[in-house]
Amino acid sequence: MATQDMSSEVRSGEQRAVRFHPPSFDIRVETVPIPQLIEPDDAIVKVTLAGLCGSDLHVYRGHEEVDAVMTSGHEFVGEVTALGESFKSDVSGRPSLYSTLQVGDKVVSPFTVSCGECHFCRMGFSARCVHSALFGTPDLPGGQAQYVRVPKAGGTLLKIEDITSLFHGQTQLADTSLILLADILPTGAFAALQALQHPKVSALIHNTSYPYNGFVPKHVPFDTVQLTASDRTITFAVIGLGPVGICALVSLLDMLEDISTITYRVVAIDPNVSRREKCQSVLTSMESDVKSAHVVVADIDESENIVKDWTGGVGCDAVLEVVGNNSALTLAYDIVRPFGVISSVGVHQGPPLPFTGRDVYNKNVSFEFGRCPVRAILPIAAAILLKRQDVFGGVGGSASLIDKILGFDEAPEIYKVFNEGGCGKILFDPWRS
Amino acid sequence: MATQDMSSEVRSGEQRAVRFHPPSFDIRVETVPIPQLIEPDDAIVKVTLAGLCGSDLHVYRGHEEVDAVMTSGHEFVGEVTALGESFKSDVSGRPSLYSTLQVGDKVVSPFTVSCGECHFCRMGFSARCVHSALFGTPDLPGGQAQYVRVPKAGGTLLKIEDITSLFHGQTQLADTSLILLADILPTGAFAALQALQHPKVSALIHNTSYPYNGFVPKHVPFDTVQLTASDRTITFAVIGLGPVGICALVSLLDMLEDISTITYRVVAIDPNVSRREKCQSVLTSMESDVKSAHVVVADIDESENIVKDWTGGVGCDAVLEVVGNNSALTLAYDIVRPFGVISSVGVHQGPPLPFTGRDVYNKNVSFEFGRCPVRAILPIAAAILLKRQDVFGGVGGSASLIDKILGFDEAPEIYKVFNEGGCGKILFDPWRS
Repeated sequence: MATQDMSSEVRSGEQRAVRFHPPSFDIRVETVPIPQLIEPDDAIVKVTLAGLCGSDLHVYRGHEEVDAVMTSGHEFVGEVTALGESFKSDVSGRPSLYSTLQVGDKVVSPFTVSCGECHFCRMGFSARCVHSALFGTPDLPGGQAQYVRVPKAGGTLLKIEDITSLFHGQTQLADTSLILLADILPTGAFAALQALQHPKVSALIHNTSYPYNGFVPKHVPFDTVQLTASDRTITFAVIGLGPVGICALVSLLDMLEDISTITYRVVAIDPNVSRREKCQSVLTSMESDVKSAHVVVADIDESENIVKDWTGGVGCDAVLEVVGNNSALTLAYDIVRPFGVISSVGVHQGPPLPFTGRDVYNKNVSFEFGRCPVRAILPIAAAILLKRQDVFGGVGGSASLIDKILGFDEAPEIYKVFNEGGCGKILFDPWRS
Repeated sequence: MATQDMSSEVRSGEQRAVRFHPPSFDIRVETVPIPQLIEPDDAIVKVTLAGLCGSDLHVYRGHEEVDAVMTSGHEFVGEVTALGESFKSDVSGRPSLYSTLQVGDKVVSPFTVSCGECHFCRMGFSARCVHSALFGTPDLPGGQAQYVRVPKAGGTLLKIEDITSLFHGQTQLADTSLILLADILPTGAFAALQALQHPKVSALIHNTSYPYNGFVPKHVPFDTVQLTASDRTITFAVIGLGPVGICALVSLLDMLEDISTITYRVVAIDPNVSRREKCQSVLTSMESDVKSAHVVVADIDESENIVKDWTGGVGCDAVLEVVGNNSALTLAYDIVRPFGVISSVGVHQGPPLPFTGRDVYNKNVSFEFGRCPVRAILPIAAAILLKRQDVFGGVGGSASLIDKILGFDEAPEIYKVFNEGGCGKILFDPWRS
């Protein structure tokens, strides 16, 4: 199908979309119906930019056992073109977007649906909302299309105006920057936050020995142990330097810079040379006070020696695992210290975890697994996005997270290249010929 | 060997000890040499009471692959009879016990050696001290003997006088109570503390949605979500109601009572009827303000329905796993909520963990695994011990944690009975005929 102008698309009721055909490695650009409102809480969003994400490759490779043709993609920004009945009725007590969202508003969507009204949403665990659904699955057509239906849209969507007003409208952000809020920047920030907030790591930040940095029962006497400067030099690793891994690294560095009382070291690890080069360029490009001298980018084998040398054999205080396979988890285990934290945001698949009960007992390992609650993490991710436009503001440069913007026609080929590690993060402009 | 009085034992240079003979189920009471000082940091302790612990059964059943005859046991209280050269020399900068410990002092020992002078010890991770050694292994003869050699004794031992002075000498504690500090009460308290301190649980305590209850970067705006009373009713499970499980339950209840701002529910789970009965008796016997009405003791099958009913299908906020096998871990996974915490203090063995990567990703599970750092937890455990003498003060009653005190002659038989779940916690008096 040839590219048409938007109005004729709408009239025809058809749109173009990037579709996955099972079982694997089969991406096609097809003409499908424009989605319609189904539920009263739905919105229809006209997509201006859609992302291709590392976790799309799990489907592409056939690891997710998808058994139906589906529209791909879970990252998109766009403009509201239609709103369900809920947006016009009395919605007191519901998320504010049910009262305020208008046709024409610019929005970004987290990669999962969240209602904003259940226990999980209120608690900040929005990725496990009782109405959770993942864009780009057989159950919910994805963002690599010209239009997307967004369920529970008053809970799910984020109005760009609300994001920038959180920061007093201090800046305008390009769509190429905002789309990072759909998944990869919050996911990276979540990986860093899970590590820094864990009591077995935050003890170091609070200059207090564990467990006296957190809740302890009343009336417990405790003579604070004097920690040495070397005790308080925190060592992190980030495993996986794809786009999410770089987001995790930049988020971690940004957060560490807020903690004036500690020193830190980070080893950023990937076996892929071009990813390591990209990471090094990003670090070099960072303009402000992040101490990139404390960051070493390394291959896997080197990394184990670096951690050993830095820590005298103790190991990393925390490891951010941003890959999602057992090799990465095993490396994380090998380089984390006893009583250390493995913050895993990789999308893990069917194989059993590569540890025995004795392994995890003997090293006193803490694991954080699972999906980022984007809605909950968004204020933090947005603050990082605004502050670090030196990293997140560009497209196509050697230090840019986003490699290029393509039309849908190039989707089948670029999925192949991306799967082989031959390019960085790709965005699709659904309206480009 | 017939029982002798102590002085003749010392003269003869021989003592009686409970010894494990590989590969399994073979416990003998034998005459062995009294241990001597080897290193300058050593102490020799004359044992007044030694404990039999559930984790001794891992060795007994042959699961630890012990390949040499060894003296069993890792819980003991006693009196110092000899001290190495370090205790007589200039020890400035070393743990205070190197200056203050005297022959004749009453002491309790954590179940592992910790030097008090390495990074791990300073950080409160004493169970993974670089000099760590576990009593009752081929490498370090255990406490079920008349005398024990304690390495790094100035870091490892706890002087009873120092424990009681932490609490202004407010009470005298019997040896039958103090021996609980060697392992099971700190381990239970650690299980509870890991759950309560975890950011994904402590958010509820702080009435703040995750992750805004912990460290967040500066300048992040956030409108606090209003949590409902029902959001803030915390639900816990304790899996395994042996002596450590009951210590975990009592510690948890004691800690929860310190948090006036929340309500809570606890399901205490064990498939063994007599353990459930013991747990129920303990709860009934608790005199003070612990709301035992909020605690239900249940069999495994019932427990899943109870959690479902209580939480409307959400699941437990945290599960304390105090068993150490894959059935217990699987149950913990099944009943914990998404973004919940599994605090596992069970001593896990060789089998692989019973989860796939997808299992742990899809439920956003947090796991805390491993051995209690007794030295670090001790002030907390001691506070609980003193406050809850209604539970920890007795021997042999229906609500007592300690079932009976036996002489070594009965060791082979009682190991068998204990292994079959036929008795509660047993102590040995090494001097009883």
